[in-house]
Amino acid sequence: MKFIHTGDWHLGKLVHGIYMTEDQRYLLNQFIEVVAEEQPDAVVIAGDLYDRSVPPTDAVELLDEILFKINVELNIPVVAIAGNHDSAERLSFGSSWYRHNHFYLTGKLIYDFRPVQIKGVNFHLVPYAEPGHVRHLLDDSSVHSHQDAMKAVIGKMEQNLNPNEPNILVGHAFVLGGETCESERTLSVGGSGCVSSDLFAPFSYTALGHLHSPDAIRHDKIKYSGSLMKYSFSEAKQRKTISIIEMNENGSFEIRERTLTPRQDMRELEGHLEELLDPKFYEKQKTDDYLKVTLLDDGSLIDPIGKLRKIYPHVLHLERKIESVDQKQLRNFSSIKEEKKSELDLFEQFYREMTTAEFTDEKRELMAGIVNKVLKEEAQK
Amino acid sequence: MKFIHTGDWHLGKLVHGIYMTEDQRYLLNQFIEVVAEEQPDAVVIAGDLYDRSVPPTDAVELLDEILFKINVELNIPVVAIAGNHDSAERLSFGSSWYRHNHFYLTGKLIYDFRPVQIKGVNFHLVPYAEPGHVRHLLDDSSVHSHQDAMKAVIGKMEQNLNPNEPNILVGHAFVLGGETCESERTLSVGGSGCVSSDLFAPFSYTALGHLHSPDAIRHDKIKYSGSLMKYSFSEAKQRKTISIIEMNENGSFEIRERTLTPRQDMRELEGHLEELLDPKFYEKQKTDDYLKVTLLDDGSLIDPIGKLRKIYPHVLHLERKIESVDQKQLRNFSSIKEEKKSELDLFEQFYREMTTAEFTDEKRELMAGIVNKVLKEEAQK
Repeated sequence: MKFIHTGDWHLGKLVHGIYMTEDQRYLLNQFIEVVAEEQPDAVVIAGDLYDRSVPPTDAVELLDEILFKINVELNIPVVAIAGNHDSAERLSFGSSWYRHNHFYLTGKLIYDFRPVQIKGVNFHLVPYAEPGHVRHLLDDSSVHSHQDAMKAVIGKMEQNLNPNEPNILVGHAFVLGGETCESERTLSVGGSGCVSSDLFAPFSYTALGHLHSPDAIRHDKIKYSGSLMKYSFSEAKQRKTISIIEMNENGSFEIRERTLTPRQDMRELEGHLEELLDPKFYEKQKTDDYLKVTLLDDGSLIDPIGKLRKIYPHVLHLERKIESVDQKQLRNFSSIKEEKKSELDLFEQFYREMTTAEFTDEKRELMAGIVNKVLKEEAQK
Repeated sequence: MKFIHTGDWHLGKLVHGIYMTEDQRYLLNQFIEVVAEEQPDAVVIAGDLYDRSVPPTDAVELLDEILFKINVELNIPVVAIAGNHDSAERLSFGSSWYRHNHFYLTGKLIYDFRPVQIKGVNFHLVPYAEPGHVRHLLDDSSVHSHQDAMKAVIGKMEQNLNPNEPNILVGHAFVLGGETCESERTLSVGGSGCVSSDLFAPFSYTALGHLHSPDAIRHDKIKYSGSLMKYSFSEAKQRKTISIIEMNENGSFEIRERTLTPRQDMRELEGHLEELLDPKFYEKQKTDDYLKVTLLDDGSLIDPIGKLRKIYPHVLHLERKIESVDQKQLRNFSSIKEEKKSELDLFEQFYREMTTAEFTDEKRELMAGIVNKVLKEEAQK
């Protein structure tokens, strides 16, 4: 039995103010080609189909279109769960009809722990749920953390679990051993969001969504699919893949990865402004990628982002890295909160670090006047 | 062939700040009983399933539950279109799967004008669409009004229409001859929202949604279902029914109506406060109905709504009707915008009309002081 494991599509995602929907469409059309070529027995989507509970309508239309192509046109069963970004209730709408066509969508966790069976393999679906929901659903007052919730749900599932058949858990959770990154919305404070990998011992394979890197956890039988594409610069160096699993009757399996090619990559570029604007450099670049640019120049620059965007239209983020600044000074700058410095001293420090120019007496006097004026106004409020 | 015509469910509707979802559930459960009893060949829902494009999640769950019971459990085909309150795109999600189970849902008007065929009857579905959408869809620059749009769409439908079979149009529009009322959101300015009833001549029956009264149009072959329940006090005296149509092979039909009983009625109550608070009066009343109360008392009253709500917990709106006021005076009051009166004169007029008491010199002096103070403060700003 062969299935494809994907997840974290985040349709309707905004990255630095830009909707990714067309990029997502481009990748998902490739995904459909892979599905058509591989002809799996199922496609598993491990949550976060949408990026938010009420996604923009073109994201709704895109999901409808893609799932229709896979499930109806290619006639391939689809197994999907809601992630923390999805609205469990909204996603659930219509699930009962979809099942008729072997599209198994679980939005809201309900009291039905029977697996979906496809070609001798049991898929146990655990959509993202808050511990409070699980506590209420199972009437189990001991459930407080995500760990408790997953343990309790798996406990219920084990009651129906046939250990002589391959069992796959499809979940959307932060499983310990994984790394976090910027674009995953913080779920819970402290460790309560984490789930221990030991819990998944009863399963032949655990198909996870939530963390965006396919390498987020190193485990023989537990895997994150990774997101459809890079959704933040913290993911710039991550691989983005889909996993193809061939499951044997005894629950052993082989796993393969395939890569989709984004319309525009998301990557970081570092250098001096002049160098980045030099044709000798940028002619070798894919200039229309989504870029975070880090400039190494000292001193002030006039409209660097405007100049960069003439060459690289999709610069989404610009940073400056001041190499000449004494590391000790930088450390001081980081720890200013602990010291008591005057506003003028703070500004002077900031000015020196940002411009590497002299903060002359004349400038100091001008700034002092402004600072005093503001402080006076504040005091009068 | 027998079908039930309903519409304007407006799930998730807020009336005077109160969610009607539980009232709607109560009525829809009765509706299901009627459907189970009548065993129609189809249930037709003529738009405005939801009250807004992003309905609350419990409205989403309610619609899913009700449609599942009708279509899957009772195994009765459902024909539904989006109204102006629905989001065409959001409602469309999953339609392709629903068709497999004879649930024909058209959210967004698309370029496919073939009818849905059920037991020899053709249902032509025209979800609510803005003229601009139709202009673009049909690439017909002459479409500017709802009249143009409906005419153009029906023109397309006529190309596939077999006049020897019964043809039913399911639409959501303001068809001329109908009356408007408060709770229908204003669609377009002037007459551009209206559609002439002549356009529907090719159809054996036109099943409309949009206007909330089943009596909104008097026509042999065109009918509004009316809304599921009363959604504003302007509908307090309207009948609320569902229509049961038995369609013959030659397109002639008989029509019957059935009535659902709301958990709480929405009605108006008029009288003097003392009378309404008298057990002899209210013991004969269904005191928990949704009420608009009009008080006939002269003079000032202390906390009338608080007192009323102790007896009638669901007073949603309170009005005063001052009977003793001279009609001429009232007319003057209505036209004060045109005259130049001082603030004090305006207040005096208001005071006399509201209280029917004397506006004594003492009161006048007190009020003059307040008015002057406010005017002075305004001038200083």
